[in-house]
Amino acid sequence: MNESVFHDPSSVLLLGPGPSPVSDAVRAAMAAPVLGHLDPEFVQLMDRVQGGLRTLYGTENRFTLPISGTGSAGMEAAVVNLVEPGDRVVVGIHGVFGGRMRDLVERQGGEAVVVEVPFGEPLDPDAMAEAIAGGDTKVVGLVHAETSTGVLQPLAEIVGAARAAGALVVLDCVTSLGGVPVELDRLGVDAAYSGTQKCLSVPPGLAPLSFSERAFERIRSRAKPSTSWYLDAGLLSGYWGEGQRAYHHTAPISMIYGLAAGLDAALGEGLEERFARHADAAQRLHRGLEVLGLECLVPVELRTPMLTSVCVPDGVDELAVRKRLRQLHGIEIGGGLGSLAGRVWRIGLMGHGARPEVVQRLLAALGESLGSVGFRCDVGAAMSTASV
Amino acid sequence: MNESVFHDPSSVLLLGPGPSPVSDAVRAAMAAPVLGHLDPEFVQLMDRVQGGLRTLYGTENRFTLPISGTGSAGMEAAVVNLVEPGDRVVVGIHGVFGGRMRDLVERQGGEAVVVEVPFGEPLDPDAMAEAIAGGDTKVVGLVHAETSTGVLQPLAEIVGAARAAGALVVLDCVTSLGGVPVELDRLGVDAAYSGTQKCLSVPPGLAPLSFSERAFERIRSRAKPSTSWYLDAGLLSGYWGEGQRAYHHTAPISMIYGLAAGLDAALGEGLEERFARHADAAQRLHRGLEVLGLECLVPVELRTPMLTSVCVPDGVDELAVRKRLRQLHGIEIGGGLGSLAGRVWRIGLMGHGARPEVVQRLLAALGESLGSVGFRCDVGAAMSTASV
Repeated sequence: MNESVFHDPSSVLLLGPGPSPVSDAVRAAMAAPVLGHLDPEFVQLMDRVQGGLRTLYGTENRFTLPISGTGSAGMEAAVVNLVEPGDRVVVGIHGVFGGRMRDLVERQGGEAVVVEVPFGEPLDPDAMAEAIAGGDTKVVGLVHAETSTGVLQPLAEIVGAARAAGALVVLDCVTSLGGVPVELDRLGVDAAYSGTQKCLSVPPGLAPLSFSERAFERIRSRAKPSTSWYLDAGLLSGYWGEGQRAYHHTAPISMIYGLAAGLDAALGEGLEERFARHADAAQRLHRGLEVLGLECLVPVELRTPMLTSVCVPDGVDELAVRKRLRQLHGIEIGGGLGSLAGRVWRIGLMGHGARPEVVQRLLAALGESLGSVGFRCDVGAAMSTASV
Repeated sequence: MNESVFHDPSSVLLLGPGPSPVSDAVRAAMAAPVLGHLDPEFVQLMDRVQGGLRTLYGTENRFTLPISGTGSAGMEAAVVNLVEPGDRVVVGIHGVFGGRMRDLVERQGGEAVVVEVPFGEPLDPDAMAEAIAGGDTKVVGLVHAETSTGVLQPLAEIVGAARAAGALVVLDCVTSLGGVPVELDRLGVDAAYSGTQKCLSVPPGLAPLSFSERAFERIRSRAKPSTSWYLDAGLLSGYWGEGQRAYHHTAPISMIYGLAAGLDAALGEGLEERFARHADAAQRLHRGLEVLGLECLVPVELRTPMLTSVCVPDGVDELAVRKRLRQLHGIEIGGGLGSLAGRVWRIGLMGHGARPEVVQRLLAALGESLGSVGFRCDVGAAMSTASV
């Protein structure tokens, strides 16, 4: 048998926009013996995973489960279940992922009403409220932590406007969940989805999804079933719900093991402690970047801790820096997406990666790589500043 | 941290309709260090996986890749890409999975023309040909190895009728791929999908999908994009295709490691050898079942080797037998689905599980369990008959 690359892939420190570093405990769980998807032992584990996700999401929503696909499948599940042809949907776009949501709304035959701001800015609550009030708005969709920019969107006013109009709120929590508080019930958010490969530090492959009773009621009263069978919330709840489990599709057992281990780690650490760790790592990074002479795209008060967009200095070859980081230092960071391509680097300190020692290693490697392309900076001073 | 069930799930011998037994090599691959989804090392692995899938499918189709979801997501990907509203689609239903395809066609606004036979029988080629010729048929969909019954559908005549009518053929290979020959190019099949958790012996989570150039041409000329963004073939081919990889969604890295390891095992063994091993294990099982006094649902000439539906004898509590197999013997077999619920057991000898020693262990445990519910049988004789 061919002994090939996947047996021994390089150990890369994943500090891009995801996937994030995966702990040994989670990797071990991925390799555990596979059980059947209707096995009583596995059903117990499903219950535990659902309970853990509810805690993480700050919700009592019965329908809270991992979709058998990556984060984007979570977005698709939210939209195909909640949007019917002709529905007016206000979509806030402050990055690539808001744009993706508009695309999905239109594929369902929904009318997407777009409120847009330049990448790097947050959505304007007044503009959102005006758009929401401008018609019979059924759904309002927006992104909590925009992975393409690093903006953490303030939510209260927009959710309030949506609720006042009787619209459901769909919140993209792909990058925020597990790194900052996401309190669905307190906020009044009706639908939220995330991915496992960001602040949960689990490999990509599942999309935790939660629907409120209000959202589920909307789904029950659809005129026609959703365009998706695989993501149909009613069918999924027959497998993930209480009582007799009805076979829907064969669940990705090993991924769910990984998620269970990731949830154990997050809840074992404590959510408050975990959020504080993410905030602390981000602050260290921001101080260090400043000493290196780099600017961040997003003002500090709007910056999401787990993802920082760093402006590429004039005259610096951004790809050369990323290549050197990967090849010499074994570190992955991200480039820009959409209108920010070539203009920013995206540095993720997510889950297992949000630690002071990781910030030190990154600043050292980034400073060295910047020096190699002629950008002078004081690496030692940056590391020292980030050390306290 | 909570040391919990997933760290040490029971080792169950998986002899149901899937998931199938996973080798240690594949499990180790699932736990390998996670790379970024655009990492050059990972891109190399993607190429290798695509090459392996082409060999397995007997195709040179450029568009051959694993969909980031389980087998049902593969069916959904085939249908949402190939079926447009108003399209006439002939769906052959000889089990649960054909019924699922009809559902999906209708969710896309297609007109599903159904050709149905009782569960346990194969589709009638003449009835299929008549339905195909009965209108402007765009697509013909059917299942190769029906996981709900264990029928291996003869294909040549039906595919011929479809091709003569200019219709695309979509073939469900979820259970057949890797266990019996699936030769897309020789057969003239335009779209096929499968799952990793059957004869590939990889955990569930990916759906190998292949589209012919003819199918892809149909997709390119769609009047409107598919209802799915996640499964959109054009977008997927930008990430999986040659040249510059365009970010679409974050691929499930660890699952793709597992698939790579599973493909290595299959191709290292040799496909002919692998098919022969599946056939041999099935014959041993069938001989042993006969000595136990059990009847199979499907006539031997139509029986798919990797999945055998066994009729529950009158007066036997089928659930009690399955429970005893799981609890006392550590073996999972499946119950019946749809109209066969309560009437059959489904025994899978798939991938790593298609071995003489597995058949011996199963016959011993099944015989003991049948005895425990009052069904007299000669376990020793069955094992002995299956040994040669």
